[in-house]
Amino acid sequence: MDLAHQAFEAGEVPVGALVVTENNQIIGKGFNQTEMLNDVTAHAEMLAITAAANHLDAKYLRDCRLYVTLEPCVMCAGAIAWSQVDAIFYGAPDKKRGYSKYSENIIHHKKEVFGGFLAEESEALLKEFFGRLRT
Amino acid sequence: MDLAHQAFEAGEVPVGALVVTENNQIIGKGFNQTEMLNDVTAHAEMLAITAAANHLDAKYLRDCRLYVTLEPCVMCAGAIAWSQVDAIFYGAPDKKRGYSKYSENIIHHKKEVFGGFLAEESEALLKEFFGRLRT
Repeated sequence: MDLAHQAFEAGEVPVGALVVTENNQIIGKGFNQTEMLNDVTAHAEMLAITAAANHLDAKYLRDCRLYVTLEPCVMCAGAIAWSQVDAIFYGAPDKKRGYSKYSENIIHHKKEVFGGFLAEESEALLKEFFGRLRT
Repeated sequence: MDLAHQAFEAGEVPVGALVVTENNQIIGKGFNQTEMLNDVTAHAEMLAITAAANHLDAKYLRDCRLYVTLEPCVMCAGAIAWSQVDAIFYGAPDKKRGYSKYSENIIHHKKEVFGGFLAEESEALLKEFFGRLRT
């Protein structure tokens, strides 16, 4: 949520993501930077996955978990599948753009997926952001 | 196909991608660099989309087309959807990892999608790559 707030302050859609080892060490952080970087691929999860891989100097994030404040989109769900993280925890559901609208199987069935963490807080921040955009 | 061959020479899964404007100017190129960059998100399409956005200094690649030698995976299909390119042309189908295994709708229905260009050539290069890997 701190990373999502950083995105908010920067005028970005407020989403934050972390990659964490089995020893609870944070090895990758990201918040949405699509505006700053002028790049539709710069979602929080993508940046966190790339940062974690850089940290480990390894392509695969085995035995790691990914946390994100909003249900991943299809692109990020695909990246999560490739990354081989063990489990993902997400906050608010995303009925319009979330991967589960297309297929739950996009994130490989061997991974554990948990939704709803700090969902209200995450949703409130997103609503405030889009509310301000409209006014 | 030239970019796919560059990937092959570099020991990467041989896939290449281009983003082209409506005037047929190439504004983004990419070949798979997941090994070189130690990054599962470094697929040809992702790199081509980011390069094109950098070139245009704009997030959206409207009126552009994307060419790729292999059917995009879910991650890349999601990025293609976000990028707002007009049309995509791909080479070989990817029955195991291609996005269409999950849902054709991942790439927005307003986009034109054409498959099968240089498919045999692309498939032959991929087969040679994976054949060498196994031996």
